[in-house]
Amino acid sequence: MAKINENYLKLPGSYLFSTIAKKVNEYTAKNPDKKIIRMGIGDVTRPLAKAVTDAMHDAVEDMGSYEGFHGYGPEQGYDFLRMLIVENDYKKRGIDIAIDEIFVSDGAKSDTGNITDIFAVDNTVAVCDPVYPVYVDTNAMAGRAGDFGKDGRWTNLIYMPCTEESGFLPALPSKHADLIYLCFPNNPTGMAATKEQLAVWVDYARRNGSVILFDSAYEAFIQDEDVPHSIYEIEGAKECAIEFRSFSKTAGFTGTRCAYTVVPKELKVGGVMLNGLWLRRQTTKFNGVPYIVQKGAAAVYSEQGQKEIKETISYYMNNAKIIREGLACAGLTVYGGVNAPYIWAKTPNGLGSWEFFDSLLEKAAVVTTPGAGFGPSGEGYIRLTAFSTLDATKEAVERIKKILY
Amino acid sequence: MAKINENYLKLPGSYLFSTIAKKVNEYTAKNPDKKIIRMGIGDVTRPLAKAVTDAMHDAVEDMGSYEGFHGYGPEQGYDFLRMLIVENDYKKRGIDIAIDEIFVSDGAKSDTGNITDIFAVDNTVAVCDPVYPVYVDTNAMAGRAGDFGKDGRWTNLIYMPCTEESGFLPALPSKHADLIYLCFPNNPTGMAATKEQLAVWVDYARRNGSVILFDSAYEAFIQDEDVPHSIYEIEGAKECAIEFRSFSKTAGFTGTRCAYTVVPKELKVGGVMLNGLWLRRQTTKFNGVPYIVQKGAAAVYSEQGQKEIKETISYYMNNAKIIREGLACAGLTVYGGVNAPYIWAKTPNGLGSWEFFDSLLEKAAVVTTPGAGFGPSGEGYIRLTAFSTLDATKEAVERIKKILY
Repeated sequence: MAKINENYLKLPGSYLFSTIAKKVNEYTAKNPDKKIIRMGIGDVTRPLAKAVTDAMHDAVEDMGSYEGFHGYGPEQGYDFLRMLIVENDYKKRGIDIAIDEIFVSDGAKSDTGNITDIFAVDNTVAVCDPVYPVYVDTNAMAGRAGDFGKDGRWTNLIYMPCTEESGFLPALPSKHADLIYLCFPNNPTGMAATKEQLAVWVDYARRNGSVILFDSAYEAFIQDEDVPHSIYEIEGAKECAIEFRSFSKTAGFTGTRCAYTVVPKELKVGGVMLNGLWLRRQTTKFNGVPYIVQKGAAAVYSEQGQKEIKETISYYMNNAKIIREGLACAGLTVYGGVNAPYIWAKTPNGLGSWEFFDSLLEKAAVVTTPGAGFGPSGEGYIRLTAFSTLDATKEAVERIKKILY
Repeated sequence: MAKINENYLKLPGSYLFSTIAKKVNEYTAKNPDKKIIRMGIGDVTRPLAKAVTDAMHDAVEDMGSYEGFHGYGPEQGYDFLRMLIVENDYKKRGIDIAIDEIFVSDGAKSDTGNITDIFAVDNTVAVCDPVYPVYVDTNAMAGRAGDFGKDGRWTNLIYMPCTEESGFLPALPSKHADLIYLCFPNNPTGMAATKEQLAVWVDYARRNGSVILFDSAYEAFIQDEDVPHSIYEIEGAKECAIEFRSFSKTAGFTGTRCAYTVVPKELKVGGVMLNGLWLRRQTTKFNGVPYIVQKGAAAVYSEQGQKEIKETISYYMNNAKIIREGLACAGLTVYGGVNAPYIWAKTPNGLGSWEFFDSLLEKAAVVTTPGAGFGPSGEGYIRLTAFSTLDATKEAVERIKKILY
């Protein structure tokens, strides 16, 4: 008799977004004339840059011709793209990363999930709370999380609460952690870490033989000078950290799919280079990103591409400012939204996340995400995203202001 | 201290293709004026159909516009594509598959590798010998294969030799197998199985509570009427089999990346629907195939798309015929190449795979793949592929004929 992976049965349902969808549907059925504004989902809305679509048109032409056709590419990505990543995302910031330390992939979600393949099951795992659920669920699937308790926590995971008191920065884990997930700028809180703050983690990891899994998917939104874009800006990080980057939010690639992961050759566990293990994992279980998509991603680094994506990011960050300032003006305590497209707003009068969510939906027809959906320490907050249109953002803020005054 | 997945260290190096590359490089250095013909690699060479590139151009335009932009899509694929798959690949053959049993993905390699995530580590696994190495390596990485022995076999895998005597069809496993990988039309032997032959496996799996992982990546090359395109043509298969399909060879998508996996809802293990587990795996660890690529894949099913891909497949199958008949005419015993783009040729005079490979390279400047690279039972054979140009194929066959006469 075949046997399933029983860890899958321990996973609670993905109630968060399905519950939100259900509530929104009910509201719409009752209020067919109300225009819903969605500020909950972390998906971009603005089109790809023309530099990118031009490059993809050319690549489609290549694929339709005998001379330009591309079959299987290198699983780790074409050198034309990896070279641009090395030059633009690292060398320009004074970071020395080699081309064979870059692994192009179809998404940071896939990579942050699949990376645990190369680690033993009995590693202890530390995650922030609140947290992007993929880190938790993929470790639960692999058998590293133990059981899901009534308190909303997995028995074997180490939770690092990110609270208002600590500026939403996690404290060092309460007990020894082998693998540590960090995400800065952070999803869902929108908060960033300075070099000094990150250095504490690099130091911890080096002293304890831990590996930091650093999700840097939102680095393009950083506005402050002293916020590092890469964990490798911290000395010694190449010996203890894997970095995940994505074109999803940087260049609107959520439906185009391209990301990359950096595994430095200095990073060894028990004397074994993780770079070689990840190379083996990717060459065995992955066939690379479409040629057309890699050509599009390469165009992000062109002069025109950079100009266009920066305009789009400015557009979103202007939305973030409108949300942040509007909600503050309405009396809410707000965090994030300065170096990230997410705003983390404290509920008024000690309301629960879901209560405030319901109230915003019922009275303002604005959809947000209840913070409790990202972990127990998210209770008492809601997340708003800056990815809507300017007009819808303004209107949503006005509606929220009206009900809060 | 973090710990790596020690199973990775048990993997032997991927010596096959690197050894081939080394030998070819050495030959080229010594014989710079000789024109090498590559008949070894299973990658397509002809451009995408115009119907496909037209659809992709339109999709790129969509992605560059406000109205047509697509962000995150459903992880399981867009319904426009899943519906076409259901209608064309199943309904037209009298097979009833529901849309939510189709999971669109970036490749059959990824899917056949990742599928083992949903199974317990202690399942016993049966593979054909010779075999597509991904089935073996991914199970070794997951800890199901035991240790790699000096005989070229993993201690815990059940090998099902496919030999000349049995028409290269595997015999039922010698001991109980929980998971059984089958690939028809087969890579590397190019042989196909009839309905009656497949029915034996479905019967075995149903009696033993086994799950068949059926790789059908080469179904588009089937020419004979009595060869099933899908394992679901066999009664009862929906209760015991997962099927993997790909656009890679069907429509030249090796560099475009689109495939799909069918997990019927009737398929339960220990009372649990595997469909739900795979859905959970894919929604948690995967973000879907690019919109542009799915639009291209959908165009494969258009009238023009079908016409074009059939022309390309005919072109390759004509190459297969030339290889098969040419080598037979030169006195070799050849298999495959009738319902598959692979020809499995017996080495002459009891030569070893590598000896014959060397001889073809040295004397004819033709690159093949030694059968031993696919498993111990591949010794004494070489694999040739039909994916080259007509001219190169003809010339390669002439050169081989010349050295064999």
